[in-house]
Amino acid sequence: MRDSYSLSEIAAFLGAELRGDGEVRVTGISTLHDAGPDQLAFLANEKYASQLASCQAAAVIIAGKYITGSMAFAGAALILDNPYLGYARISQWFDRAPMPASGIHPAAIIADSAKIGKDVAIAANVVVEANAVIGAGSSLGAGVFVGARSQLGERCKVAANVSIYHDVIIGAKVIIHSGSVIGADGFGFAPVGTGEWQKIYQIGGVEIGDNVEIGACTTIDRGALGDTRIGRGVIIDNHVQIAHNCVVGDNSALAAYSALAGSSSLGKNCILAGDACLVGHIQVCDNVQVTARTLVTKSITEPGSYSSGSPLMTTREWRKNAVRMSQLDSMARRLKALEK
Amino acid sequence: MRDSYSLSEIAAFLGAELRGDGEVRVTGISTLHDAGPDQLAFLANEKYASQLASCQAAAVIIAGKYITGSMAFAGAALILDNPYLGYARISQWFDRAPMPASGIHPAAIIADSAKIGKDVAIAANVVVEANAVIGAGSSLGAGVFVGARSQLGERCKVAANVSIYHDVIIGAKVIIHSGSVIGADGFGFAPVGTGEWQKIYQIGGVEIGDNVEIGACTTIDRGALGDTRIGRGVIIDNHVQIAHNCVVGDNSALAAYSALAGSSSLGKNCILAGDACLVGHIQVCDNVQVTARTLVTKSITEPGSYSSGSPLMTTREWRKNAVRMSQLDSMARRLKALEK
Amino acid sequence: MRDSYSLSEIAAFLGAELRGDGEVRVTGISTLHDAGPDQLAFLANEKYASQLASCQAAAVIIAGKYITGSMAFAGAALILDNPYLGYARISQWFDRAPMPASGIHPAAIIADSAKIGKDVAIAANVVVEANAVIGAGSSLGAGVFVGARSQLGERCKVAANVSIYHDVIIGAKVIIHSGSVIGADGFGFAPVGTGEWQKIYQIGGVEIGDNVEIGACTTIDRGALGDTRIGRGVIIDNHVQIAHNCVVGDNSALAAYSALAGSSSLGKNCILAGDACLVGHIQVCDNVQVTARTLVTKSITEPGSYSSGSPLMTTREWRKNAVRMSQLDSMARRLKALEK
Repeated sequence: MRDSYSLSEIAAFLGAELRGDGEVRVTGISTLHDAGPDQLAFLANEKYASQLASCQAAAVIIAGKYITGSMAFAGAALILDNPYLGYARISQWFDRAPMPASGIHPAAIIADSAKIGKDVAIAANVVVEANAVIGAGSSLGAGVFVGARSQLGERCKVAANVSIYHDVIIGAKVIIHSGSVIGADGFGFAPVGTGEWQKIYQIGGVEIGDNVEIGACTTIDRGALGDTRIGRGVIIDNHVQIAHNCVVGDNSALAAYSALAGSSSLGKNCILAGDACLVGHIQVCDNVQVTARTLVTKSITEPGSYSSGSPLMTTREWRKNAVRMSQLDSMARRLKALEK
Repeated sequence: MRDSYSLSEIAAFLGAELRGDGEVRVTGISTLHDAGPDQLAFLANEKYASQLASCQAAAVIIAGKYITGSMAFAGAALILDNPYLGYARISQWFDRAPMPASGIHPAAIIADSAKIGKDVAIAANVVVEANAVIGAGSSLGAGVFVGARSQLGERCKVAANVSIYHDVIIGAKVIIHSGSVIGADGFGFAPVGTGEWQKIYQIGGVEIGDNVEIGACTTIDRGALGDTRIGRGVIIDNHVQIAHNCVVGDNSALAAYSALAGSSSLGKNCILAGDACLVGHIQVCDNVQVTARTLVTKSITEPGSYSSGSPLMTTREWRKNAVRMSQLDSMARRLKALEK
Repeated sequence: MRDSYSLSEIAAFLGAELRGDGEVRVTGISTLHDAGPDQLAFLANEKYASQLASCQAAAVIIAGKYITGSMAFAGAALILDNPYLGYARISQWFDRAPMPASGIHPAAIIADSAKIGKDVAIAANVVVEANAVIGAGSSLGAGVFVGARSQLGERCKVAANVSIYHDVIIGAKVIIHSGSVIGADGFGFAPVGTGEWQKIYQIGGVEIGDNVEIGACTTIDRGALGDTRIGRGVIIDNHVQIAHNCVVGDNSALAAYSALAGSSSLGKNCILAGDACLVGHIQVCDNVQVTARTLVTKSITEPGSYSSGSPLMTTREWRKNAVRMSQLDSMARRLKALEK
């Protein structure tokens, strides 16, 4: 990042209409409440509009409706139809993440047969095994492991201590955060009959599309036969589990602890809120939202929002009510009897 | 793996009756639907039997009942009582996982006092501390850490970036996937009275039996006093948590996110489905199955299947029903009053 | 740890009244049931008092009420008002964890601009980036990554394979277990309108107070704007998720899989049992306890205990009752109609 940017260059990048002095320079971005006079702010949620009056920011990214009329905001403004998207797009200009050192660190260990693209940044203690491919402009953080024949596309960013097994195919501009594991064996075992389990070797791979982001401590297992597949533009949070042979459609969003059990599929443009999980061998269609901690126990064929779970109570109230959940079928039968 | 295998050598390994030309060679294994003419397939689930007619595979691993009668499968067959087990056993022949490089990589750091068995494969950036023991034929992936005095039996496979603390005893033929942590401190603290917590140092260790498989990003904590113990043949998926001083009986299966809280025990031959968790200080007997996302809040003394949770609904329906869960005790009392 | 300690030096450290021979030496600590004649034991829970009679320990840490009267314990005793706290405090004397090798291992890679305090123990394959600060007396295990400008206070212990991103500020005497990730990007994206997501760069950092313990495979994300903040004395178990811009108050305890979704706050002296999760953008006040697997869906303003969830049943019973949960609103309406 540079030290500062002028309002006019920001307006140009965002395609925003600028009201105010384009020569004014800003060094950061913050909330309406916290932004100082050398920072940018934004109004993305109507409930914060009351903070405009006391906002100290150099300029506010804002929708047109707030800058006209008697109650209008009078300060410098970058006027956009979608200020939240504007904030998201400009946020990169103020990102403090250090640029990874270009080249291959002498303490990285790269197999001779690996193909390393131009302008990569491979940190210390990275291990890249035979016939792996690292696309141009990609960075691998300290301690990353890339197994044999796995491929990363161009401009990927893999953070420290990520493990990528063999035969994993990853698209371009994919971000993977620390501690995540791509391509570990799926959980496949056949009962032997004696109570013991026979491991089913996991012969498939993993395919991940372009522009995917994967959080920290997330796991995407390789397929038993055939691949586990993550579509383009999918965003995945921390502690997520994608089991073997699952399919996640393009642009779906999976919040922390959400999961797909083996061989399930999630459509395109779906949202799994935190801890929303699909059991195995089911299909969820496109444009489905699943609320937090919902267990999806059967296929969903209609777009819409789905839920399960019980509401929050004091523990005292909950104890009284929970015991009745065990009596519900009896209650229903007694109710029916009374109705007769 | 070799490039191809003849049907006759596969039949001999599996103890299968071969119908067809034993000289035919196959290069892989796939599903009935996807297998090509140089691949093996298998029929393990009756619902796929209709795919036999159009199956292109070189041969199908199949039960005898499908190869006789007017509707019988007419192609090449490897006839077995348990085709799924046959598939599982032969799957290793087609595993693409690269053989780890034998010997100790020059960038591994092994304490002088560590005992390293024959024919090990220790990758770059492995650290093995004082008096640790690595059994013959075991492999340690890049970046694995093995703490002081810990022991791995023969033919273990530890994937990249696994962390094994000190004084952990692991049996033979144990597989541990990337990101997992064995022997971290249990979560033990005593309240000081001022609101602060006094750490209880975790003096115990971990013991893991032979033939255990542990998934990725799974944690097995060391005991507070005495050991946390995992029996023989236990299979553990990703993101599982085994807290301090828990005991898991032989051949039990723990799916992703399943957990045992402190000092709980799970019997032999149990199955915890995804996210099935035991609270602390309870005992679950042998041969218990717990369905997905069930919270086991008390000891279980009878074999069988156990559940908790609420069913999936549209969010609209769920909102109406969930509010009634908070009124259940009142409803039950009113129902009883009406009955009188 | 030393090989043995005398009862008199233990009594002096704990401020306990000693009954018995202060010259007797002990080599370890165990439970009343398991302690041998050269070990210490403790009685912290009344239900184990019956084990006193057969206890073989050299001495027992015990409350005064058990050593007088006709049923009193007659053996050597270290008498304390709070024996559990006494056990916790003395446990460190018997900890088997090896002392990390002091100094900087030659295979560690430390940026020239990093500031490394006195008496540190930095293991092999550690990477510390530009302008990071490692406080005096701190230890970093093998494979730890510390990003640019991040700071660790004095006497921290960071276990193997922990990843700490850039601009993370950690206090003194903080313990972090293996596989954990501090400062990964929060899960922030703006919808583009085409179904795609625009990443919001996570410009904030993480601040962690003194005396915090963080378990294995736990994630604490950096803030979007401003910091994610963990107070002093907070204790955090394995697989916990603290999302961007959350705040955790001093001395709160978070058991395994507990979580705060984005921008939520938890007060001081709270306890989240296993898998107790807060949805985003809510506030929970001080002195709240949340039971296992409870989903906190709204702010809590009154101290006390809170719960959600459904009780454990056999799967057979559960199936009958669960279907009624989907009919609850109808049942409530029919009940009301009958009452009229």
